[in-house]
Parts: sequence; structure tokens; C-alpha cells
Amino acid sequence: MKEKDSMQKGLDLVNRSEIAMLGTNADQGYPHIRGMIKMENEGLKKIWFSTNTSSEKAKQLSKNSKACVYFVDFEKWMGLTLVGTCKILQDAESKQRLWREGFEKYYALGVTDPDYSVLLFTAEWGKYYHNLTITAFEI
Amino acid sequence: MKEKDSMQKGLDLVNRSEIAMLGTNADQGYPHIRGMIKMENEGLKKIWFSTNTSSEKAKQLSKNSKACVYFVDFEKWMGLTLVGTCKILQDAESKQRLWREGFEKYYALGVTDPDYSVLLFTAEWGKYYHNLTITAFEI
Repeated sequence: MKEKDSMQKGLDLVNRSEIAMLGTNADQGYPHIRGMIKMENEGLKKIWFSTNTSSEKAKQLSKNSKACVYFVDFEKWMGLTLVGTCKILQDAESKQRLWREGFEKYYALGVTDPDYSVLLFTAEWGKYYHNLTITAFEI
Repeated sequence: MKEKDSMQKGLDLVNRSEIAMLGTNADQGYPHIRGMIKMENEGLKKIWFSTNTSSEKAKQLSKNSKACVYFVDFEKWMGLTLVGTCKILQDAESKQRLWREGFEKYYALGVTDPDYSVLLFTAEWGKYYHNLTITAFEI
């Protein structure tokens, strides 16, 4: 029950968050974090982002797909960490699916721009924090 | 000039942030992120946090001190990643320095509670993001 409740609160946080923090394994064994626009999600299991193919994060993920995604509500002091793997997708369907009006400012050549990639993060487990309590769960 | 300007903007972001995201190397090669109260900072070079000695993050850092700290302004879409190492401090002076009124809710035995530790993160380099531009700098 406690797990189910935490997963639901975590999902509410994901659904209302515009920005997520993506954690990757960077060079020389250092972790790296950057904020990303959360484009779409399928429950807590899958989260889609877009990125420049030439970006550092894409290079890091092509070497090591292990990743985490963090959502936070600063006012309510709630946090959700999802742990899993993140794939770089280049297929036309995924690129079309994620494309939004105005994306030309990131990817000048449009939806077929080779510098436009989709990131699909798939969670294996997660941790929800609120009120000094951490609840872990499989996803 | 651009570096100096980005470092100053990054420092302004650190100074006004109450919460930072700490990235660590967790078990089985996965990165992990969690929000932390930023207790004190010395420019961009040093950042102090407090934590439970028994916490997962303390265990992770005792195995591998490589870490990163991320600050974000959701409204202005600014982000700062600092990369370096994070030490666990148990000495009385550090513990006294970081102790705040009300900390008993985290560390029931008070300032000498063995479950109370100080984390000192020391940055080696950083990356500042704003307006589609990333600037990297040594610290």
C-alpha cells in the first residue's frame, strides 16, 4: 500500500513536471546531471526527451546507457528518482512523434536533421522522497 | 570574458538556490540523483551539505567520491553543473559548523549523533547553461 501510494504520488509529480534532471555516466567515472524538457511519459516506466545528436549527453549514453531521471517539487519538497537505461533513437517515427513547433531553433534542418535525436529512458526501479520518508519500488 | 560572465551567473544561481541536486555513482554502475538542502558554499569551489551517515548517498560516496552538483532555475531556464569530489566529514568542528536549529528531526541525538555527517563537495570544473548556450570552465 505504501509503495503503491508513493508510486502514484511520484507519477503525479512526473505528470505535472515540465523539466526533469537526467543523470549519466560521464568521462573519467564522474556522474553528470543536466535539466531536460520532459517531452512525454508512459507512467513511470518510459520517459521521452529530445537532444542534439552531437551533445555530450548523447556521447555519454552511446558509451553507457545506464542513467537516472530525477523530478523535484521545490515547494512541496518532494523528489522522485527513477533508475534504468536510456537509448538514443534515430528512427523517423520516433523523431516525428517527439517533434514540436519551434524545434527548428534546436534542430535547424527540421525533423530529419541528423543532429536531432530522441532519448527514451526506461525505468527499472525508483525512489520517492517526501516528509523525511524514502520509499523504493520496482517499476 | 564569456567564461567569467557564466561563472558569475552560475554563482548567483548557487547563492540564491536553497536546493541542489547531488549526483553520485550508485551500485552496479548506475548514476543516482537526489535533492539536498544546500547548507553553505564558498564561491563555486566548495559546497556543504548534511546527511545521515547511514544514508545510501553516504555509502555511495564512501566507495566512490566522484560526484556532481546541479543547480537549476526552472523559470529562467538556467542550469549549472559542477563536477568534482565529495567527502564525508565526521569531525566535531565541521558538524558544529553545519548544525542548525531543528536538526534534531533529522539527527535525534544532536550534534554529536554518529548518524549525522557533513558532506563537503569540491568542484573541479563546471558547465553553465542558458539561452541554448553551454559554457564550460575550470574552477
